Amino acid sequence: MDIPAWRSKIDSLDEQIVQLISQRAQAAKAIGDLKRTANLPVYEPSREQHVLNHVRAANPGPLPDAELLHIYERIIDVMRTLQRRDEK
Amino acid sequence: MDIPAWRSKIDSLDEQIVQLISQRAQAAKAIGDLKRTANLPVYEPSREQHVLNHVRAANPGPLPDAELLHIYERIIDVMRTLQRRDEK
Repeated sequence: MDIPAWRSKIDSLDEQIVQLISQRAQAAKAIGDLKRTANLPVYEPSREQHVLNHVRAANPGPLPDAELLHIYERIIDVMRTLQRRDEK
Repeated sequence: MDIPAWRSKIDSLDEQIVQLISQRAQAAKAIGDLKRTANLPVYEPSREQHVLNHVRAANPGPLPDAELLHIYERIIDVMRTLQRRDEK
């Protein structure tokens, strides 16, 4: 495969990644609403640690765990902001 | 759905996201090898702009574009590091 062919594959992967991140955001929003109703805090360190451990365990490579977690720290950060923004 | 049910859905989405990010990394690695052979630079601002525009166009919500791009800036950054690390 040449560079344009790999890039076309990346574009297609990105479309799927965007769909899944958006579904994840939808779920985070739903959890945010439930937390608000139950007066639970948005920030739950033990749940965030679970997510990071789960991602590390699922990593097939070639990214080193640290780099994948670097991406996930950003994902978690954005989802936390989303849950907070919806607070009345 | 209650909070544990949404979290179980998130765990399953994360497994799929990790697989796709890993496939994306595999493609980025292949492009890095081809660039090296052809003496092309790792950093190509016009390609990175294309990726961000493509992601913005594919965004179905609920994340605002800015938040999704915030995640993608991290993904691009990690992929660029991966391409550089493999330089001999």
